[in-house]
Amino acid sequence: MARETGAPESGDATVERLTAFAVRMADAVRPVVRRHFRSRIAIETKADSSPVTLADREAETTARSLIAETYPDHGIVGEEFGALREDAEHVWIIDPIDGTKAFITGKPLFGTLIALQQAGVPTIGVVDMPALDERWIGTDGKPTTFNGQVATTRECPSLSEALLATTTPDMFVGENEGAFQRIRASVGACHYGGDCYNYALLASGFIDLVVEAQLQTYDFMALVPVIAGAGGIITDWQGRPLGPGSDGRVVAAGDRRVHAAAIERLNA
Amino acid sequence: MARETGAPESGDATVERLTAFAVRMADAVRPVVRRHFRSRIAIETKADSSPVTLADREAETTARSLIAETYPDHGIVGEEFGALREDAEHVWIIDPIDGTKAFITGKPLFGTLIALQQAGVPTIGVVDMPALDERWIGTDGKPTTFNGQVATTRECPSLSEALLATTTPDMFVGENEGAFQRIRASVGACHYGGDCYNYALLASGFIDLVVEAQLQTYDFMALVPVIAGAGGIITDWQGRPLGPGSDGRVVAAGDRRVHAAAIERLNA
Repeated sequence: MARETGAPESGDATVERLTAFAVRMADAVRPVVRRHFRSRIAIETKADSSPVTLADREAETTARSLIAETYPDHGIVGEEFGALREDAEHVWIIDPIDGTKAFITGKPLFGTLIALQQAGVPTIGVVDMPALDERWIGTDGKPTTFNGQVATTRECPSLSEALLATTTPDMFVGENEGAFQRIRASVGACHYGGDCYNYALLASGFIDLVVEAQLQTYDFMALVPVIAGAGGIITDWQGRPLGPGSDGRVVAAGDRRVHAAAIERLNA
Repeated sequence: MARETGAPESGDATVERLTAFAVRMADAVRPVVRRHFRSRIAIETKADSSPVTLADREAETTARSLIAETYPDHGIVGEEFGALREDAEHVWIIDPIDGTKAFITGKPLFGTLIALQQAGVPTIGVVDMPALDERWIGTDGKPTTFNGQVATTRECPSLSEALLATTTPDMFVGENEGAFQRIRASVGACHYGGDCYNYALLASGFIDLVVEAQLQTYDFMALVPVIAGAGGIITDWQGRPLGPGSDGRVVAAGDRRVHAAAIERLNA
C-alpha cells in the first residue's frame, strides 16, 4: 500500500515499504508464471500470441497493474510493454520471465526479476524462481536474503580456482567471443545454462563468477542489490557500476580478487 | 524383496518385481543425495574425499548394498566403485549423481540414473531428480511414467523446428565438433545445461532433440527404456541401439523424422 500522508517517513521506513511492495509484486506474479509452465498446449501455439509471450504478458500486466494502483507516479520499464515515465524518481524495472528457453524446455530455472531504480541507481532487487519456491531479496545497504535467510558470497582467491557460470557461449560475438574464451581458459570450471539463477547462486556462495554479454537493462538491474548485499560485486566489463546506460556486458563475482582478475582478462 | 521360490514367475511379474526394486533403490538414494546438496562445507572440501565424491560414494554404496542384499547374483556397474559380475544375466548400472557441475553450482538439475541391463539390453530405467521430486520410470514394453503419469514425446516434423538441448558444447571435440555445429545450425533453438534431465524432458515432450558425446555407459543406459517407452528413439550417431559397447555418442529424439534428419546431419 502507498504510504499515508502525514509526518515525513524515514529513509529506512521508505526502503522497507518499497521492499515490501516488491515482494508483493513477486507474490502476485509467481502463480501467473507457474500456471503457464509446462502447459503443452500453450507451448505448441505459435506466432503472435505465442505461449511464452502470453505468460510474459500476463505476468507483466499483473505487476504493472499493482504499480499503477499503488504508486501511480512511479515509472515502469518492462520487457513486454516497454517504458512509462522512465524519468520518474522511482522506476520499476521488470522481467517477468528471465530464462525463456529454460521455461519452454520445461526446466524450472527461469526467474522473475523486479528492480527499483531511484535516480538511475538500482536500490531494490528481487530474483524470484516461481517453479522452485526460491527468492532472493536485495536492498541497498542491507544483507541480501534467500528465502528469509541471510545470503553471502564465498571467498575465492584466484581465477584459476573460480567456478564460472554463463547462460550460453552463443551470447559472445565479435570481440566479446575472444574475451570470453580468455576467461573460459583461465577458470577452474565452467557451467552453462542458468540465466538470472547463476547470479542468485553466486549471491549464495555456490558460484564464483558470472560473465555475460547482450543483456538488457531488465536482465541485470535486479541483480545489483542482490549481489552487493551478499558481499559480491557486479559491474560492466570495464568495472563501472551497472545502470540504465550500460552496454549489456556484465561481470559478477563473489570475491573482489576474482572480479579484478576477470576484468583484466576480459580486456587483455 | 527377491522373489519367493515356488511356481515359475511370469515375465510380466518379473518385470514388475524388478521395476519395484529399481524404484526402491531410487527412494533410498534420494535422501542421501539431497543431504549433500548445497552443503557449503562439504563443497569446499577438496582432494581425495571431495564432497561430490562423498555424495556420490554414499549414494552408490546405498544402492550397492540394496542390490547385494536382495539380488546377490546380479551384477553391478557404478560410476564410483566400478564393475562387479559384469557378465551376469542381470546387471544394474548406476550413476548416483549425473550432472555433477549442476550439483556443485547449487542447481537442482542433477539426477540419479538406475538401469537394469538384461543380456546386454537395458530393460528398466529410472531417472530420479532428488532435489525436484521428479521421477521418470521406463520399462521395456510399457509406457514411461513421470511422477506416476504417462509421459509421451511430442511430434516435431523437421529439424528446423526442433528444440535441441545439450549439456555443453565443450563435450564435442575433434570431428565431433564439426558434426555438432552442423546440427546446431540446422535446429530451431538450442539450450545448454541439463545432463540427464534433457532426456527426461524429451520423454515428456518439452524437448525434441538431444545430441551428446563422451557419455559413459552409466550416463545413457537408464535413458533407453525411458525414451523408448515414451514413444521416442535413442541411438548412437550411426543409428544403432545403445549398449555397453557404445562409443558414448548419443542422439535422442521425440519424433523419428527428427532423429533420421539428425543422423544424416551428424554424418554429412
